[in-house]
Amino acid sequence: MLLPVSTWQDIEAWLGKSRTIVIPIGSMEQHGPNGFIGTDAICPEVIVRHAESLAPDDMLVGPTFSVGCAQHHLGFPGTITLRPSTMIAAMEDWTESLMRHGFERIYWLNGHGGNIATIEAAFAEIHARRSFDPRGADNRPGIALKRRDWWDFSSVMSLCNQLYPTGHGSHATASEVSVTYHAYPDRARPEVKMSPKIAPSGTISDAVRYRQDFPDGRIGSDPTQSSVEDGAKIVAVAAEAVLEEVRRFAA
Amino acid sequence: MLLPVSTWQDIEAWLGKSRTIVIPIGSMEQHGPNGFIGTDAICPEVIVRHAESLAPDDMLVGPTFSVGCAQHHLGFPGTITLRPSTMIAAMEDWTESLMRHGFERIYWLNGHGGNIATIEAAFAEIHARRSFDPRGADNRPGIALKRRDWWDFSSVMSLCNQLYPTGHGSHATASEVSVTYHAYPDRARPEVKMSPKIAPSGTISDAVRYRQDFPDGRIGSDPTQSSVEDGAKIVAVAAEAVLEEVRRFAA
Amino acid sequence: MLLPVSTWQDIEAWLGKSRTIVIPIGSMEQHGPNGFIGTDAICPEVIVRHAESLAPDDMLVGPTFSVGCAQHHLGFPGTITLRPSTMIAAMEDWTESLMRHGFERIYWLNGHGGNIATIEAAFAEIHARRSFDPRGADNRPGIALKRRDWWDFSSVMSLCNQLYPTGHGSHATASEVSVTYHAYPDRARPEVKMSPKIAPSGTISDAVRYRQDFPDGRIGSDPTQSSVEDGAKIVAVAAEAVLEEVRRFAA
Amino acid sequence: MLLPVSTWQDIEAWLGKSRTIVIPIGSMEQHGPNGFIGTDAICPEVIVRHAESLAPDDMLVGPTFSVGCAQHHLGFPGTITLRPSTMIAAMEDWTESLMRHGFERIYWLNGHGGNIATIEAAFAEIHARRSFDPRGADNRPGIALKRRDWWDFSSVMSLCNQLYPTGHGSHATASEVSVTYHAYPDRARPEVKMSPKIAPSGTISDAVRYRQDFPDGRIGSDPTQSSVEDGAKIVAVAAEAVLEEVRRFAA
Amino acid sequence: MLLPVSTWQDIEAWLGKSRTIVIPIGSMEQHGPNGFIGTDAICPEVIVRHAESLAPDDMLVGPTFSVGCAQHHLGFPGTITLRPSTMIAAMEDWTESLMRHGFERIYWLNGHGGNIATIEAAFAEIHARRSFDPRGADNRPGIALKRRDWWDFSSVMSLCNQLYPTGHGSHATASEVSVTYHAYPDRARPEVKMSPKIAPSGTISDAVRYRQDFPDGRIGSDPTQSSVEDGAKIVAVAAEAVLEEVRRFAA
Amino acid sequence: MLLPVSTWQDIEAWLGKSRTIVIPIGSMEQHGPNGFIGTDAICPEVIVRHAESLAPDDMLVGPTFSVGCAQHHLGFPGTITLRPSTMIAAMEDWTESLMRHGFERIYWLNGHGGNIATIEAAFAEIHARRSFDPRGADNRPGIALKRRDWWDFSSVMSLCNQLYPTGHGSHATASEVSVTYHAYPDRARPEVKMSPKIAPSGTISDAVRYRQDFPDGRIGSDPTQSSVEDGAKIVAVAAEAVLEEVRRFAA
Repeated sequence: MLLPVSTWQDIEAWLGKSRTIVIPIGSMEQHGPNGFIGTDAICPEVIVRHAESLAPDDMLVGPTFSVGCAQHHLGFPGTITLRPSTMIAAMEDWTESLMRHGFERIYWLNGHGGNIATIEAAFAEIHARRSFDPRGADNRPGIALKRRDWWDFSSVMSLCNQLYPTGHGSHATASEVSVTYHAYPDRARPEVKMSPKIAPSGTISDAVRYRQDFPDGRIGSDPTQSSVEDGAKIVAVAAEAVLEEVRRFAA
Repeated sequence: MLLPVSTWQDIEAWLGKSRTIVIPIGSMEQHGPNGFIGTDAICPEVIVRHAESLAPDDMLVGPTFSVGCAQHHLGFPGTITLRPSTMIAAMEDWTESLMRHGFERIYWLNGHGGNIATIEAAFAEIHARRSFDPRGADNRPGIALKRRDWWDFSSVMSLCNQLYPTGHGSHATASEVSVTYHAYPDRARPEVKMSPKIAPSGTISDAVRYRQDFPDGRIGSDPTQSSVEDGAKIVAVAAEAVLEEVRRFAA
Repeated sequence: MLLPVSTWQDIEAWLGKSRTIVIPIGSMEQHGPNGFIGTDAICPEVIVRHAESLAPDDMLVGPTFSVGCAQHHLGFPGTITLRPSTMIAAMEDWTESLMRHGFERIYWLNGHGGNIATIEAAFAEIHARRSFDPRGADNRPGIALKRRDWWDFSSVMSLCNQLYPTGHGSHATASEVSVTYHAYPDRARPEVKMSPKIAPSGTISDAVRYRQDFPDGRIGSDPTQSSVEDGAKIVAVAAEAVLEEVRRFAA
Repeated sequence: MLLPVSTWQDIEAWLGKSRTIVIPIGSMEQHGPNGFIGTDAICPEVIVRHAESLAPDDMLVGPTFSVGCAQHHLGFPGTITLRPSTMIAAMEDWTESLMRHGFERIYWLNGHGGNIATIEAAFAEIHARRSFDPRGADNRPGIALKRRDWWDFSSVMSLCNQLYPTGHGSHATASEVSVTYHAYPDRARPEVKMSPKIAPSGTISDAVRYRQDFPDGRIGSDPTQSSVEDGAKIVAVAAEAVLEEVRRFAA
Repeated sequence: MLLPVSTWQDIEAWLGKSRTIVIPIGSMEQHGPNGFIGTDAICPEVIVRHAESLAPDDMLVGPTFSVGCAQHHLGFPGTITLRPSTMIAAMEDWTESLMRHGFERIYWLNGHGGNIATIEAAFAEIHARRSFDPRGADNRPGIALKRRDWWDFSSVMSLCNQLYPTGHGSHATASEVSVTYHAYPDRARPEVKMSPKIAPSGTISDAVRYRQDFPDGRIGSDPTQSSVEDGAKIVAVAAEAVLEEVRRFAA
Repeated sequence: MLLPVSTWQDIEAWLGKSRTIVIPIGSMEQHGPNGFIGTDAICPEVIVRHAESLAPDDMLVGPTFSVGCAQHHLGFPGTITLRPSTMIAAMEDWTESLMRHGFERIYWLNGHGGNIATIEAAFAEIHARRSFDPRGADNRPGIALKRRDWWDFSSVMSLCNQLYPTGHGSHATASEVSVTYHAYPDRARPEVKMSPKIAPSGTISDAVRYRQDFPDGRIGSDPTQSSVEDGAKIVAVAAEAVLEEVRRFAA
């Protein structure tokens, strides 16, 4: 079930059988010369929605948390970021809202490496309430919060390694660009050339340095390899992995 | 141009000719027995995207700010809210990000009456920086921030009054449900009955009282009148009004 | 009863018969060449105190919340503002304090258009606590929060339109200056001339732009029409309207 | 000059000759069986305004910061408090506003012992900006912030000791009640009896314990000694001391 | 008992007999030409640990809160500060953690005058929770919070006056430097000369002014008098005073 | 050089030759039946100080950030935690203080897995300032922030695997207990028995669940293997690795 296009009665019925919800969480940041700014939000959303389409009764999908932690990409036009402290506050509010309705398990499918630290910090901030004051435990069970990065399933990693033995990279990767091309085939950019073919690698700090170190935005990748067809394959494998894991998480 | 499916080079090129961006801003909250929880995010997004399709060179559309101020709807499962203080912080971060790139005019197309106060408070919070310290003005022009509620164009109001002379209402309105049915025709719910046909009216405070006063979530509306066809008409009129206003705003 | 000059036993006795309190809320900001900086705090205070004098047993008046949201006036010396986020925190603390004592209904008589959004956002922030966690409802009833702008009674508006058919304006209005002259007749400034006689109109953003657009601080008004006598009339009509509305609100 | 009843041109003229402003700062809290809840705001306000009346050209008086830190008095109806963190934020905003206009010296005349720590913490928070980033010093001089408790002049203390050799106390003191009776003679409560005549002494923590330890709200005082006449004497002496100190501070 | 080198079972056992804990709290800031940057953290830590060694069963010592409010010293390399608002938040978290385990009395032995205001503001912030909502009192007793500045015992002050009849001073004092030399005799700096011998006195605001007014960092002191031997004497006297007071506080 | 026992002139001299500082960062939390509550603060502190002793001219060591993110351990007496949002604010203040003096590279040697996410989130929060407003870059270089977990050097991991082929674990590990025994040999607890010998493994959420899942506090470890001698070996290897890495980082 997709929460944004469901009624509250649908969700009430869902809660009669399950206490689990899946939230795609991404970022709005540059993805090099042929990748979309919304890549990191699009990927988990597309994967989760495909998973939901396979088993609509087994998965409730919430709205996409689409703007995350991308301060290091602000040197490139179009990037939008939250400060980590704002993101923690927003994730708290989402979680408190869902707990109000009786949700006890939230599975966040993450599309952005730069979100990982802040998502985990937000989990600790949320758990801290019950940890400080366990009296609430009598009335309200604790909340289970799980983060999964969509590329971090062994089946997905195997496929990506097989598709892109070189130049997969770590930002604006060949695989994520393929997933977005699968989602928006009309907007694919096969014509874009890049130089060097494989982007440099390095570490990340602030936006000024990032743009100096990675002039076209990519890190370690050659996304000219990306294609709509590859994207379809990756989405299929990832969706299956997500579906299986969510079923176990909900159990 | 749609920012989430553009590259950073596209946005760089856009900034060479315009300093304006449009942000749809909505809410994730119950909309009665036949309305979608995502109604208030879907409506401005659909309208803006239709406007953009009419004149892609005249409008840049950012990601949708899809979760807003909906604390009063928390009595109904599925509603997700930000606290106003969190929403102010998030809108500040979005705006600061966009100003970093050179945007000078942000047009927020709003889909939720409950967002109005917090959006305006956020504008004041953002303007306060330059107001406290105008020295920044030498380096960076002030930012123009404008909110428009999509239903608040005279052409749109006329059409809605004509389509729904009675039972248009103020929450889960006949018109907004039509717009979402137009966007997701497969999910329309013509079969849902409601009693009373026209929901009661009243004032809003917290979620406990809201559910007592408005048991099925609607306020003053009869959205059984809603239809895919009406939605198409409303979107067409609203998109035209938005396009015209954005052109003036950008000038 | 006036809280600041009452004892705690007086308030304890009041709570034995009523759960309602009235708070004047204003701003400290320039009001053009002949208006006082404290105009927006003085007006609701004077009106409420006059209302209280008519029926001391029917109205408890708290201290005046005298500094509000006035960032846009910071280009003019003497203006003092809170950021909206600070104002929300302060209104929360006032409300929590009053709830601690058993107050269940707070009526905020507002004197400043620029406060409206932040007052409403503060209400949502305050209500959000109970909305997120309704278990508190068993022990403590929800709080009723109402904002009324003093000029927004039909009787007051009629009188102002009659007194000032042209040049009433929207900032440093003829009516508010009259109310403050009535309160401080020795400080009235009948000698001040203005040019143009009726100030320009327009929209508001930050303080730099405000001063450019409205060089002497007024918006759309000709307050050279203001007088002590007019002020007395306006206060009489407004006080009556407030008294009647507070009685209904408290019931 | 009194800022709330001045125009912005008056303040602009003041800034041509002085960079100093005086802010009365108090609290809204119970003051025992015959003291007003507003005592701590009324006292510094009355003293400062009397001082200003003696030398209107030598002193600019801002609005009264009338609600301070009074959490320990919340056990008594009518008390209103800010949390210290809110009070720090509000004092920052007031100070930033005044610095925007060119004020360089702010003298806070304090009426409440419970405010002392938070006022000083707010000063440190405000100074920290320049301390962290002294580059601002080129454009904008540092701000001088001074707190004076009105009872803490040797002339005032001598007078109080002489008027009330026993039972002056530390909360709801004989002297502060006299000052408020002088300000509001019609509201004096000579008829109120107290038992014990001199209230107990002790330390302060939270509101629950405070009410247990100090059942009628007083600490160590016998304010049945208070009178309108004493208040006049105290105000005269305190105003003179304030005026002299402000002149030195401004120099 | 020293908490950092105890096990949780040790603390569980301690809580079986006592609800009191002692926290040394200091600062990390310049202390003139021969004083250590950590002076204000070292002093209370050394004193408390000596006290604990005299009666390990009577005193539980927590970790040292070693970085406090030192914005005014930022003009001197090595100083590290928290903003007051951050320090309040951190002290809240420490206190909430300790209350979770059943501690009911926290004795903060303070080593820095510049911390006093913020520590007291933090106490008020912490107490405010119970003051706003006393219902928690049924389940959880209030917390007793006490601050003691280590130099503020009469026995300690007598000794310091006797050891340093002139040039004790108020920052980088002869006594505190002696205490740190006693703690780290190998790092004593008998060779350092200072000019003037006794540093100037004055008031404190921000770091830019502090360095102008107190060029080598000292205020009013001549710490060339400091010695390891004096430090031993001071620690002995202070530790005894702390031990006695903690025993009374815990009773 | 050790900052807490240095003078400001020492740090000024250091800055003449280096812009790098090392900060040990840990936690105050239960470490099972024979581990100290301060383990995670003690380990990086001991290692860094040993490294400094090997090459005092090559390493400046700041104070230990000793209380971190340990909400999940609050079920065990003695644990003290910061909320992640507080920890971010405190790390910002430390970093801003150090940047004020001219430090450009901060190396945080971390002793607690539960700190990792929040440290990285704090880095992003700190970098965001320059990312949002790169104009600061002209005056002030960006800051380099690096986190290293002390156990995460290959030489250290090899040694630990060799010393504890089974039961090294992930909380209250055999190696960290050894390091603390080396630091405080008199407090070693060879007599403590544990059952089961190797603790269970699992995932972490809030404190209530943690204590249910890991009844004596350990995760996956058998720290009865720990010894003073092992600790010495580990410290030697880790200190060498830290020294080498800091030299490279500073270059």
